[in-house]
Amino acid sequence: MEKKEIKKVVLAYSGGLDTSIIIPWLKENYNNCEVIAVSADVGQESELEGLEEKAIKTGASKLYIEDLRKEFIEDYIYPTMKAGAIYENKYLLGTSFARPVIAKRIVEIAKKEGADAICHGCTGKGNDQVRFELTIKAFAPEMTIIAPWRTWNIKSRDEEIDYAEAHNIPLKITRETNYSKDKNLWHLSHEGMDLEDPANEPKYDEILELGVSPEKAPDQATYVTVTFEKGVPVKVDGQKLSSVEIIEKLNKIGGANGVGICDMVENRLVGMKSRGVYETPGGTILYTAHEILESICLDKDTQHFKQHVAIKFADLVYNGQWFTPLREALSAFVDKTQETVSGEVKLKIYKGNVMNAGVRSEHSLYSEDIATFGEDDVYDQYDSQGFINLYGLPIKVKALLDQKKLK
Amino acid sequence: MEKKEIKKVVLAYSGGLDTSIIIPWLKENYNNCEVIAVSADVGQESELEGLEEKAIKTGASKLYIEDLRKEFIEDYIYPTMKAGAIYENKYLLGTSFARPVIAKRIVEIAKKEGADAICHGCTGKGNDQVRFELTIKAFAPEMTIIAPWRTWNIKSRDEEIDYAEAHNIPLKITRETNYSKDKNLWHLSHEGMDLEDPANEPKYDEILELGVSPEKAPDQATYVTVTFEKGVPVKVDGQKLSSVEIIEKLNKIGGANGVGICDMVENRLVGMKSRGVYETPGGTILYTAHEILESICLDKDTQHFKQHVAIKFADLVYNGQWFTPLREALSAFVDKTQETVSGEVKLKIYKGNVMNAGVRSEHSLYSEDIATFGEDDVYDQYDSQGFINLYGLPIKVKALLDQKKLK
Amino acid sequence: MEKKEIKKVVLAYSGGLDTSIIIPWLKENYNNCEVIAVSADVGQESELEGLEEKAIKTGASKLYIEDLRKEFIEDYIYPTMKAGAIYENKYLLGTSFARPVIAKRIVEIAKKEGADAICHGCTGKGNDQVRFELTIKAFAPEMTIIAPWRTWNIKSRDEEIDYAEAHNIPLKITRETNYSKDKNLWHLSHEGMDLEDPANEPKYDEILELGVSPEKAPDQATYVTVTFEKGVPVKVDGQKLSSVEIIEKLNKIGGANGVGICDMVENRLVGMKSRGVYETPGGTILYTAHEILESICLDKDTQHFKQHVAIKFADLVYNGQWFTPLREALSAFVDKTQETVSGEVKLKIYKGNVMNAGVRSEHSLYSEDIATFGEDDVYDQYDSQGFINLYGLPIKVKALLDQKKLK
Amino acid sequence: MEKKEIKKVVLAYSGGLDTSIIIPWLKENYNNCEVIAVSADVGQESELEGLEEKAIKTGASKLYIEDLRKEFIEDYIYPTMKAGAIYENKYLLGTSFARPVIAKRIVEIAKKEGADAICHGCTGKGNDQVRFELTIKAFAPEMTIIAPWRTWNIKSRDEEIDYAEAHNIPLKITRETNYSKDKNLWHLSHEGMDLEDPANEPKYDEILELGVSPEKAPDQATYVTVTFEKGVPVKVDGQKLSSVEIIEKLNKIGGANGVGICDMVENRLVGMKSRGVYETPGGTILYTAHEILESICLDKDTQHFKQHVAIKFADLVYNGQWFTPLREALSAFVDKTQETVSGEVKLKIYKGNVMNAGVRSEHSLYSEDIATFGEDDVYDQYDSQGFINLYGLPIKVKALLDQKKLK
Repeated sequence: MEKKEIKKVVLAYSGGLDTSIIIPWLKENYNNCEVIAVSADVGQESELEGLEEKAIKTGASKLYIEDLRKEFIEDYIYPTMKAGAIYENKYLLGTSFARPVIAKRIVEIAKKEGADAICHGCTGKGNDQVRFELTIKAFAPEMTIIAPWRTWNIKSRDEEIDYAEAHNIPLKITRETNYSKDKNLWHLSHEGMDLEDPANEPKYDEILELGVSPEKAPDQATYVTVTFEKGVPVKVDGQKLSSVEIIEKLNKIGGANGVGICDMVENRLVGMKSRGVYETPGGTILYTAHEILESICLDKDTQHFKQHVAIKFADLVYNGQWFTPLREALSAFVDKTQETVSGEVKLKIYKGNVMNAGVRSEHSLYSEDIATFGEDDVYDQYDSQGFINLYGLPIKVKALLDQKKLK
Repeated sequence: MEKKEIKKVVLAYSGGLDTSIIIPWLKENYNNCEVIAVSADVGQESELEGLEEKAIKTGASKLYIEDLRKEFIEDYIYPTMKAGAIYENKYLLGTSFARPVIAKRIVEIAKKEGADAICHGCTGKGNDQVRFELTIKAFAPEMTIIAPWRTWNIKSRDEEIDYAEAHNIPLKITRETNYSKDKNLWHLSHEGMDLEDPANEPKYDEILELGVSPEKAPDQATYVTVTFEKGVPVKVDGQKLSSVEIIEKLNKIGGANGVGICDMVENRLVGMKSRGVYETPGGTILYTAHEILESICLDKDTQHFKQHVAIKFADLVYNGQWFTPLREALSAFVDKTQETVSGEVKLKIYKGNVMNAGVRSEHSLYSEDIATFGEDDVYDQYDSQGFINLYGLPIKVKALLDQKKLK
Repeated sequence: MEKKEIKKVVLAYSGGLDTSIIIPWLKENYNNCEVIAVSADVGQESELEGLEEKAIKTGASKLYIEDLRKEFIEDYIYPTMKAGAIYENKYLLGTSFARPVIAKRIVEIAKKEGADAICHGCTGKGNDQVRFELTIKAFAPEMTIIAPWRTWNIKSRDEEIDYAEAHNIPLKITRETNYSKDKNLWHLSHEGMDLEDPANEPKYDEILELGVSPEKAPDQATYVTVTFEKGVPVKVDGQKLSSVEIIEKLNKIGGANGVGICDMVENRLVGMKSRGVYETPGGTILYTAHEILESICLDKDTQHFKQHVAIKFADLVYNGQWFTPLREALSAFVDKTQETVSGEVKLKIYKGNVMNAGVRSEHSLYSEDIATFGEDDVYDQYDSQGFINLYGLPIKVKALLDQKKLK
Repeated sequence: MEKKEIKKVVLAYSGGLDTSIIIPWLKENYNNCEVIAVSADVGQESELEGLEEKAIKTGASKLYIEDLRKEFIEDYIYPTMKAGAIYENKYLLGTSFARPVIAKRIVEIAKKEGADAICHGCTGKGNDQVRFELTIKAFAPEMTIIAPWRTWNIKSRDEEIDYAEAHNIPLKITRETNYSKDKNLWHLSHEGMDLEDPANEPKYDEILELGVSPEKAPDQATYVTVTFEKGVPVKVDGQKLSSVEIIEKLNKIGGANGVGICDMVENRLVGMKSRGVYETPGGTILYTAHEILESICLDKDTQHFKQHVAIKFADLVYNGQWFTPLREALSAFVDKTQETVSGEVKLKIYKGNVMNAGVRSEHSLYSEDIATFGEDDVYDQYDSQGFINLYGLPIKVKALLDQKKLK
């Protein structure tokens, strides 16, 4: 019913089949509206060359190419890593936080361009539609959102190709199917095909792209040292690097050594379980290093409570609730805890394993003086008797009361 | 002040240096009291032969040797594994739950023998004293507890040996020091020496006993299939085994393949951080298999809440609070969730990695019909629009209110 | 598209305007389908006399009247109260758990009658539609659900009345509007009208029905004693009563004394905030009594963790997720904790206040011997020094490390 | 063993019997050491006049009187109230946070004076010793702490008086016992005597000091309006007041109207249950007002997670862990949530009841447009069908799988 009003649409555009056929479809269904394509560079390393020509040939009036890599890492990945957030104990959220960073920029462009609607190519079964649209609602609550996959009649890859051919979309496409993938600087995900049956072992040799399987990794271990300041990595092997360089470097090391391959059945926000294989080589190294550093820099109570925060934080990121008061308040908590998380962590990387090889921090709460078995000046072993007597008092009282030896 | 009353003491006895010198010390300090030694077999594989003779030569009147392996696994390890409890995200609690199973039996013996006190050889800096004594308080709240390490003047291994020699303890002891270890069917822990500085990389070649490091593991992967019924493993590779056999078999496979080596700085209950290396080869395989099975058998809400339960459960086990109402109530929760956790998990074990190689369950909540990208009869993609609109309503309303477009 | 198939519909029927006009509407829109009306008695005390005649006159083929009061209390209310579940710290969930008990019975009838669909009269803005439909999905996942309020053109009470008059619905209805209410044995809720602006003070004199405001309550306090067995009330003032009698009696006492009036802005599941006034006189007395009893019967760790369980439990009930694995597992936890929650609680009820007037239990963990300031045999005050030294060790170590006085 | 080194002690001094006899006791036991007394004014309204003379007559060399009221409210009470922290659902923590504020100042004085030790008069059975000493450890980790009640032979009030008389302490003391009390600007607590049996109803007429019981309160309600900025009260009845004035004014209103009387059995940190009666008249009004304001200013997810934070925050305050990294990180979370908690809350105060009488905020997330039953532009009722279908998908899939109707 709002179709007649839509004169200008901003489209999240990748140049792939899905978003390419959306351009003619929009023009067909929205009275030949103007379509402005936006491609975000979050490190997916797809061909940007020729993208503008392709977009325009397909019917777009304009193409924005936006380099969001630095923002993606520093404003989304690092806050999440500092929180220690891992979805369902396994997933490092690679796709999840790439959606808000892209959608936020698209809203900015849509506002600048005076667009009437934003269109995305997410399917109606996935999480990404939610992540996209929640971000749009946060910054442009009245913006019309068009999600063709939820409404059009195209229901398969073959039908897509038919549509593309019928509309002269200039694509070299084969009818072979493949895993459904999502790639950025942080990760690469794989879904579909034989992975759809959890009883199948993943064919890693066919799947993996960011690295190799542990079996194919070198027989020699690689050592790497990561230096953190307030929870954020700032150096690799002693060398100060930009955030993009750090991720790229760790991806290379991790990938080469079979690190960060995750195979899981996860619970989607939209109610079903799905199975995916994720490659997050550099991310896995970073998370491990950060956790090791925290183990000496954070006190026990903070560490333990932060575990609960991490679970909630992961849910919020996974569910697309980045731009919410709760995510921001949790980040305030996390940032406070990170004030002392500075130091360096040496890791041994070997065939899928990321092992601690030594950690140092100015703010370490580990005291060798006290941890040692012998005597020291701070800890009087006799104190532990009093400690146990009080700590165990509820147990003792309960037992005595059960025996009616106390009133 | 209660010394005069202590006529009979039951001692948790290992036959090692620490507990051997306690026997003469007790007799010396408690008016030549009778000392009854109890050795619990929790799978530590120490020399049991000749142990009775040794105990009696050292001054004990009697030695009990108790095989607690089955009870240890079925009543302590499995409930903890079903809970998914891991202390500080890493530690599989190998030492922690071995203390209540031993202490409970010692109390039973102390009561049967009419003993006046129970004595243990734990130091005043560790967690084990707490775990021992909380169990004693639960079953014998008025029992006197003697903990020589907290009170005597012996403060080092050398002083122990001097004491042993002065009292003709029949031990072949060298003055070389070594890591402090604790071993049972589930794990082997290492503390002390060079590990006391977290900046040191562990010398795994010198440390490891239950298996090898990933580097030393075979170049060929090993596959193993574990079958669970209601969360409890019942078969390995299709073969029905006793609980002790299951752990032994998985330890062998895991150990040979460099699995389950954990190096961590942990927060002790008694207030300090300490660093340890843990070997839990079979346990790591079991936990991984169980978690994979749960990922298809449990619904999302249960899985997510169970993460919080797991954290609390781990705290309770670590802190020696096994025999408490809260641990029992959490187990009631866990057992309810496990009713559908039956099925089989195939794992690929390779140089420290434990990878999913296929999972099957009668109770699987994963539906291939629904997870697939295409159409199905249950899931209408259009529904997701309504879902998102309501799910995102708070975000939209907040944005509209901020813009004063709503009242 | 499924309209042609619907030949028999079971309708959740109250006899009020909303559900009365649904009968002709269903017949009109579903090809003169058969409509079977079901009225559940959950203690709402509406006129049941003449209800059958009214239903049949309006077009129904049959009316079931189901007395669910006992089941409602024992299987829904008591488990929730034992959990201590309160939504957003205030709401005793009166409407929430009345939906699953009704919907479950309707599904049973629909199956027995071989119906093609279930119809309810909940609006598209509320929580009740969710609670109804989740229960239907749990027991009849393929059942068609018809929710006229989400689809028809009737958008106001006036339009309803017009429709009723046009279809000769035999109702005595005035066009005066009133608060939207939901009543059952446990509570009465009020929404709408002047309450829609949170800046308005509720006009309690016009609103309240189950009791009076504190101002109108007697000047003399009333004492009442409630006896619990395993968390469940079994006697009032020493007299064994049925569950229905207990709630009725406590409602009378509470209502007469201005107890249990709650005015709140709550967060609905469907994304918006709404404001309501709830009357739960007997429920407030029961919750208070139960909490007091728990304060002496539960140990600290259980009490504290149970606070988190209560929050989750309340969410599940509020959100209609009664028939879910998580709710059942949480109930297993709760039931385990209630094994010792037996005893009696005397309360002083006075003008809206419910005050402890003395609590007794065989299972009390409160020990007067220990709580007293003086000496006792169990607690050695000197132990507290050791306790504090260890409890405060992390703080001390951190301070020493900050001052570089420790390594 | 350290006695010989103690030449100067700073004593937390109230002028009461307990701390008065400590002065001669310290001089007797620590080789006639210098004793510097410190009295902190946290609003306890005890006689300050003549206090210096009394301290010096008793043997102190000096008396500091420190007005900490403003700091107490703004740096301790308000952060706790903003967190919504209530211990065990009832206790507003009045004594708990008064200890760190006092102990912190005493450490400052001890450092300035070059004292060798700090002494307090807390008993060995209570929480206050922990709260005091944890704060001392945080700011002076090496300071010697002297806690006479844990070590001396005086075990009762009578023995105290005997000691006082033997040492010519100039006190007018009767041998009548009384409730043990702790008073400050925020609250007054009562323990001991007949309260030690939880079966006894409190004799409020004898106990209450800050106000009256509901029965004795006026028959007319009082209205009061509190204005908050970022979670902090700034005005009462439209009048800008200092923090001290706000608490005093609300105490007066609350006390006069029987508000804020709490009778509970609580779990002490040191392992036992104890029973107390607390009067917190103004605090109860403030907490209620703040919670009402949050109900319109915070979004659901933040409100719900904040409930868990509140529980943890209360534990930390109760346990004396104010100066810890976790408390500070939780406060960072809380402060972030409070950015929009501004507005005014009108309350009706009547005989123990504190009722909402209207709330307003610029940042309200309550939208009357959306909450209303009828149509609006933002919420499409049809969306709820899609919402329910996805929200209920796990339930439906489970039911279908159970029936083998899905694979």
